Amino acid sequence: MPRKQRIEVCFTPAVYHKFHNNETNVVVVDILRATSAICTAFMNGVKSIIPVSTVEEASLYKKQGYLVAAERDGIVLDFADFGNSPYNFTPERVKGKTIVYSTTNGTQAVNMAKEANKILIGSFLNIKSITDFLTSDGHDVVVFCSGWKDRFSLEDSIFAGALVESLINTNHFETICDSSLAAGDLWSIAKTDLVSYLQKAAQRSRLKKNNLDDVIEYCLTLNQTDIIPIYNNGSLIALDNCENDNIFIQRKIKLNN
Amino acid sequence: MPRKQRIEVCFTPAVYHKFHNNETNVVVVDILRATSAICTAFMNGVKSIIPVSTVEEASLYKKQGYLVAAERDGIVLDFADFGNSPYNFTPERVKGKTIVYSTTNGTQAVNMAKEANKILIGSFLNIKSITDFLTSDGHDVVVFCSGWKDRFSLEDSIFAGALVESLINTNHFETICDSSLAAGDLWSIAKTDLVSYLQKAAQRSRLKKNNLDDVIEYCLTLNQTDIIPIYNNGSLIALDNCENDNIFIQRKIKLNN
Repeated sequence: MPRKQRIEVCFTPAVYHKFHNNETNVVVVDILRATSAICTAFMNGVKSIIPVSTVEEASLYKKQGYLVAAERDGIVLDFADFGNSPYNFTPERVKGKTIVYSTTNGTQAVNMAKEANKILIGSFLNIKSITDFLTSDGHDVVVFCSGWKDRFSLEDSIFAGALVESLINTNHFETICDSSLAAGDLWSIAKTDLVSYLQKAAQRSRLKKNNLDDVIEYCLTLNQTDIIPIYNNGSLIALDNCENDNIFIQRKIKLNN
Repeated sequence: MPRKQRIEVCFTPAVYHKFHNNETNVVVVDILRATSAICTAFMNGVKSIIPVSTVEEASLYKKQGYLVAAERDGIVLDFADFGNSPYNFTPERVKGKTIVYSTTNGTQAVNMAKEANKILIGSFLNIKSITDFLTSDGHDVVVFCSGWKDRFSLEDSIFAGALVESLINTNHFETICDSSLAAGDLWSIAKTDLVSYLQKAAQRSRLKKNNLDDVIEYCLTLNQTDIIPIYNNGSLIALDNCENDNIFIQRKIKLNN
């Protein structure tokens, strides 16, 4: 019998270097709100999203004429077209377009993980598709919680626990990682009423203070899409497009030469 | 009404800089086994313990004639007198002595925290005394989990949750920190049968592999002592001795001049 695929959960970008492995698939998570917003943008037909880490990069892209979504600490940057709410990424705004995106935590995590085998964007909205893809793809998995400025975040960790449970239930995965076990146990408490459980999360209070908490229930709704945004050569694109183009095969050939 | 004291939980040394504050009392935790061993040493009459971070420092102290307890990854270093099991710190060995101590995670956390207001050594063995002291002392609290090589550790986090619950129950404390909330929830699952719950912890497997897991049940036993080891000028001493000597008052005068 081949060994099972392994799952690990990284609770904060500050320790991602402990989890990095070129052979591993990484699921980047920023439930409130970056990765939920990215999934929504693809549901609404965005062509690609360029995740950038710094405000300066986002501003440079804006000067080049790109549509830019950018915020820090929940506040839209003055030069940006809009901020981080999934509700901003409407079909009217995003369909067929390339968007530049920069947030406090999530887009930076994407860029930190870019040497991984594949980088997928995970949220409750696409958790079943993510599970199916990770299972069929066969690699080990790191669930990379973006957290809040290098701190542990409850909503990202709860999602990690949900994904751990979902993967373990396929019988293809196992974990011996304490943070995966803890995340799974937290999910077992939270799952009966996710919205009520996350009332206490610090990020909920931060969003509420700025009247940005209208998206919470939406971001905690499971399986709204089967689209998986995936990182490819500096951009996020929908996994299907990526497979049709044989992009990963081309990339592998390139790496081998 | 004065504001309540705040509790935060730091899950790994890699993010301790996010929690550090000169005014905060820090409880350093390495349940399996460093902080349980330190508490045991004081129960058995050790005079003081010098926590050192590196193998080189421990070796230098040995050459100067000190009694040295030192291990890495559960293995006793060749020059050391003994390793990290609480059972090593017998009255015959430690009573009235100064010991130099270096471990994989715990003693390094102590040294990282040394600019905090007070640094206490916490374990299940002295959790009630720690609660009482932190409550009467009046400062905010960071529970500093040593983890495993910058990773999250289940047993340290469960202890953190137990301490969070214990402090909140005094009505003097509050928390708005996601990691404290998560630790508290993990403790709520674990507390009905702590030994069984921690069967899955990675550190238990590591210890078992080296036949070092005989101490687990002991390390998970609550309230075996009211001694609180506290950091003072490079050494750990028992809090009572420290208060009798007015060491902290002297230190404050020194700092103010």
